[in-house]
Amino acid sequence: MQYTLSISTRSRAELVDITAQVQDVVRKSEVSKGICMVYVPHTTAGITINEGTDLDVPRDILEQLERLVPRDGPYRHVEGNADAHIKASLLGSSVLIPVSGGELSLGTWQAVLFGEFDGPRTRRVIVQVIGS
Amino acid sequence: MQYTLSISTRSRAELVDITAQVQDVVRKSEVSKGICMVYVPHTTAGITINEGTDLDVPRDILEQLERLVPRDGPYRHVEGNADAHIKASLLGSSVLIPVSGGELSLGTWQAVLFGEFDGPRTRRVIVQVIGS
Amino acid sequence: MQYTLSISTRSRAELVDITAQVQDVVRKSEVSKGICMVYVPHTTAGITINEGTDLDVPRDILEQLERLVPRDGPYRHVEGNADAHIKASLLGSSVLIPVSGGELSLGTWQAVLFGEFDGPRTRRVIVQVIGS
Repeated sequence: MQYTLSISTRSRAELVDITAQVQDVVRKSEVSKGICMVYVPHTTAGITINEGTDLDVPRDILEQLERLVPRDGPYRHVEGNADAHIKASLLGSSVLIPVSGGELSLGTWQAVLFGEFDGPRTRRVIVQVIGS
Repeated sequence: MQYTLSISTRSRAELVDITAQVQDVVRKSEVSKGICMVYVPHTTAGITINEGTDLDVPRDILEQLERLVPRDGPYRHVEGNADAHIKASLLGSSVLIPVSGGELSLGTWQAVLFGEFDGPRTRRVIVQVIGS
Repeated sequence: MQYTLSISTRSRAELVDITAQVQDVVRKSEVSKGICMVYVPHTTAGITINEGTDLDVPRDILEQLERLVPRDGPYRHVEGNADAHIKASLLGSSVLIPVSGGELSLGTWQAVLFGEFDGPRTRRVIVQVIGS
């Protein structure tokens, strides 16, 4: 089953917790045991798994990415969002999560975080569940 | 279906667009719906998905990786390519792409980019398509 | 088949070679051809594939991550391990490896390296093998 989520971001850079939407797709898929892939079909956004409870953690990740890849740098790409492309590749374009008992097998503190680096925009996220 | 591509790189560091070769394997696999994995069996090369249209984007990614992990650093590994190993781990050794209608479901601007960090060399890339 | 490994780490930051344990799960799974996913259900640990023969390579990766994301930084998260969360997201929470002939199809120099960034601790790693 392949399902497309729509995510509205509100800032230029933001980590949005989409765990509940992904879990919802897993339930609809009726796959009991398998793997869930969450895929970002954009080049200035990425995805990661990290803590979603203390929101200081996503903020720290974003701020450190900004220190490593500042918005204004000696970049060639003329659209002014080269940093967003680079951050997307550092984070990655997909995550995988084991599925067990029809639920995501996330660790206690883990959340699925969509990484917006050139927002605000409406973005798409593809969720696909494969049984094993 | 597991298929091995051969990639000849021309510089020490380079992002090579291999989208067409990966798409070709997906067609041969005759999988209509599923997931395509692209895997790099090397430790000084990686893989990412990003923009392949404006070639300034891959160049910006490479140049920023070089600023973050300079070729000459206080590294222990004596072969002179420690930076290439580190860059490979920052980018990652595999990407996943959804397959739909027998084609890669890449976003409009997305390309599959092989990351050479210790070339020029002939490299292998493993492409595997799993139906769902 | 879904299998959970237990990994005891011995330092705050460490890359632990878990290739043999992962290979062991692949053999037990009796999957001849497919994909193996190795998943870390923690938010201050990650996973990567890189060289495991010259141990200077994992050390270089750890030391460069420490230069890029120092333990003491201007972080908001009050638990003192913000750097560990950020390093986990830079490395990633899962890796994939092709399986062929009932064995991991790793490249000659590749090893599966568990990345501890807030140890020492006992950690879990989920290994799942999917046939194709």
